[in-house]
Amino acid sequence: MKVFVGTIVHSTWEEPMNILQNTALGVHDSEIVFIEAAQRLEDLKTKYSFIDSDITYLTSSQFMMPGMVDTHIHASQFPNNGIKLDLSLLDWLNTYTFPTEAMFSDVKVAQCVYPKVVRLLKNGTTTAAYYATLHLEASKVLAQVVHDRGQRALIGKVNMMVNCPEYYRESSITESVSETEDFIFFIKKLQTPLIKPVITPRFAVACSLDQMKQLGQLAKKHDCHIQTHLCETQAEVTWIQELFPWSKSYTDVYDTAGLLGAKTIMAHCVWIEEQELKRLKECNTGVAHCPNSNISIRSGHCDVRQLICRGIKVGLATDCSGGYSSSMLDSLRRALDVSKSLSIQRQNYQFLTLPEVFRLATLGGAQVVNMEDRIGNFEIGKEFDSLLIDFEVPRSPLDIFDKDTLEDKIHKFLYNGDDRNIVQVYVAGRCVINNKNCT
Amino acid sequence: MKVFVGTIVHSTWEEPMNILQNTALGVHDSEIVFIEAAQRLEDLKTKYSFIDSDITYLTSSQFMMPGMVDTHIHASQFPNNGIKLDLSLLDWLNTYTFPTEAMFSDVKVAQCVYPKVVRLLKNGTTTAAYYATLHLEASKVLAQVVHDRGQRALIGKVNMMVNCPEYYRESSITESVSETEDFIFFIKKLQTPLIKPVITPRFAVACSLDQMKQLGQLAKKHDCHIQTHLCETQAEVTWIQELFPWSKSYTDVYDTAGLLGAKTIMAHCVWIEEQELKRLKECNTGVAHCPNSNISIRSGHCDVRQLICRGIKVGLATDCSGGYSSSMLDSLRRALDVSKSLSIQRQNYQFLTLPEVFRLATLGGAQVVNMEDRIGNFEIGKEFDSLLIDFEVPRSPLDIFDKDTLEDKIHKFLYNGDDRNIVQVYVAGRCVINNKNCT
Ligand SMILES: [Zn+2]
Ligand SMILES: [Zn+2]
Repeated sequence: MKVFVGTIVHSTWEEPMNILQNTALGVHDSEIVFIEAAQRLEDLKTKYSFIDSDITYLTSSQFMMPGMVDTHIHASQFPNNGIKLDLSLLDWLNTYTFPTEAMFSDVKVAQCVYPKVVRLLKNGTTTAAYYATLHLEASKVLAQVVHDRGQRALIGKVNMMVNCPEYYRESSITESVSETEDFIFFIKKLQTPLIKPVITPRFAVACSLDQMKQLGQLAKKHDCHIQTHLCETQAEVTWIQELFPWSKSYTDVYDTAGLLGAKTIMAHCVWIEEQELKRLKECNTGVAHCPNSNISIRSGHCDVRQLICRGIKVGLATDCSGGYSSSMLDSLRRALDVSKSLSIQRQNYQFLTLPEVFRLATLGGAQVVNMEDRIGNFEIGKEFDSLLIDFEVPRSPLDIFDKDTLEDKIHKFLYNGDDRNIVQVYVAGRCVINNKNCT
Repeated sequence: MKVFVGTIVHSTWEEPMNILQNTALGVHDSEIVFIEAAQRLEDLKTKYSFIDSDITYLTSSQFMMPGMVDTHIHASQFPNNGIKLDLSLLDWLNTYTFPTEAMFSDVKVAQCVYPKVVRLLKNGTTTAAYYATLHLEASKVLAQVVHDRGQRALIGKVNMMVNCPEYYRESSITESVSETEDFIFFIKKLQTPLIKPVITPRFAVACSLDQMKQLGQLAKKHDCHIQTHLCETQAEVTWIQELFPWSKSYTDVYDTAGLLGAKTIMAHCVWIEEQELKRLKECNTGVAHCPNSNISIRSGHCDVRQLICRGIKVGLATDCSGGYSSSMLDSLRRALDVSKSLSIQRQNYQFLTLPEVFRLATLGGAQVVNMEDRIGNFEIGKEFDSLLIDFEVPRSPLDIFDKDTLEDKIHKFLYNGDDRNIVQVYVAGRCVINNKNCT
């Protein structure tokens, strides 16, 4: 039993940012067992049989928030974070990104690069939906590294066969499906509830309908998550119309392939139309909003407010290396920027608020990865995926003043804080990052 | 004599990002006396009579770049960095900003808040154009603090009298002008070439034409810089038309008041028209582009490319606390974002590149504060305002890989680096921040 006493901040569907002061939060094994007023601590001790040494008292400069969920990130593109952002999507893929991913045919590259994704944990990302590469062995390395580090994740071996370079494509649908199934078996053998395979057809440009259909069937067979890209750029949407002239829309292509569902994550959805949104809603398919990427490679301004108003699940994502930052705090800030950019372009646009993007980065993301019953906030029965934040660490990027309210301080962290302020990270009740010694 | 040997990166008007490897840069007192190929080091020793112990060899993970110039920042709004960004300019001023600034009537508030602006130096801002508040004594505190810290700065006591709260306005033009002149004398008494007073009528909404005229005359009398706000939001432009019905434009109001010139800094210029741009160019008046602020309080997307194409001087600025970050690295990144946002909205828009915003943050800023002959790059004869950057400090926010070129590493710093990577900061040849012990 671990018990934390102090300020707890999380989101509910009623309240985007719920600030609970003097609160006791109890964790048994990986699960949250109570969250109650700290004045009841003596009663709680009796009821849950814990002792003083089980209690951690947060200081007045600390609060606990849920771990953040990165709903879309290419682990294999990590070496390119912060470079090569002068082209738009299709050119960017061919010129920079496919060559980088192709290097993972050498498993040593995976062994060098993938351990760096531990930065995500340091940045407070407790759950990530990863794209690896086409390569089975390298994808296994990613799964193993993430497992070793203790992060919660969906991990996908990428599938693609057409409209992509000869040096970087799967050779047949049979191979594509069988290697993907091998990858599923590999993940199952890790025997951890934290890591799940995700079927990952890159995007409909690069997969034939037949390949997507067979991958969809594989997903059904193993009850897997699915992730792909949808309506990221206008050029891509136009190309899809040419490639699938029979289709009603880009979404319709995936729909026809049987890829839509509650466990499917669609990245971007910038250039999406009315009928497609309806279909996503009907299928309970979630959207990974990637604001840094959408601006950096100039894909477009995603209308997240519209997605929310239609009741579509929305989370945030870094989309490294289309987005240059691997921090969900960056993603949260850029989601505000994109929404405010839209409000500059449109009269009476209801831009997202800071509490709302805080919710998107936590509870929204949990919904998108279809784990809302397990993670995303501090409801009783959920897993304890959590960040211990401190405003006043050495070399903190924040300036706190006496006049600041608790809410002000939390806002300051969300706007200007970084990994230095994230002193502990918990996944499923286990402390996987501990910088307390540094503070 | 100090000599640095290693990678030197700076901007020229020919080349936005000039990367010089194996280069020796010599500093005598505050000035750059040579910048030459390191293979000439023995000759240079003889010519400039320095010895081995005068030489600092940068490591392979380090480079030297010019200090950055923040062309527009409200030091008095520092306590609000990262909070209260839900309103647009005019409401934001009345609801949040004027009350905060009014607190500086108590000099103790200034003594508490202003020392925090040292964060700017840590963030690599070697020159800043500061707005203080209306208060003479508090403004003196800011000047003293900046002087003590060794930063180069323009410092302005703010002037405003109309269309602003009764609790926060100057009582008469006579008082406004005489206190402003007192402030000029105070700065002169500091007897430092690093700090200059800047005449700071807040914006034409809050100053009568007569007040602006008299302040303009004061600027002429003392050959002072001038700074104010121009065309930040549409609502403000409309209000100006109502307040000055005789004027041809917002710019024309300042022009009539005699406030335009090479030493004048105009913040924002988002909603500016053809004729106004021509006039700014004629007067050689510079623009402080504040991208974080323009997005955060939803003022608009400034077309910096247009300003550059017209030959108008442009620098970058944080505009705290309209912008939430006090880091010029943030400003540089947001300038890219705004430009890329415009390229999403407009066909064939030539968006800014990373090297270009690097130049805006250094050489462009130097131009805007009319100090291009003294700072902004490493030309011989200029002052040595400089940052020593290290990619590989403890807990660095960057991931560097073997395949990264030197240019890649520099881009990674510009996109993802922070104050941890800024290990030394020099102003006029003096080391004012030294984190080498921490690394
Ligand atoms: Zn992606
Ligand atoms: Zn301003």
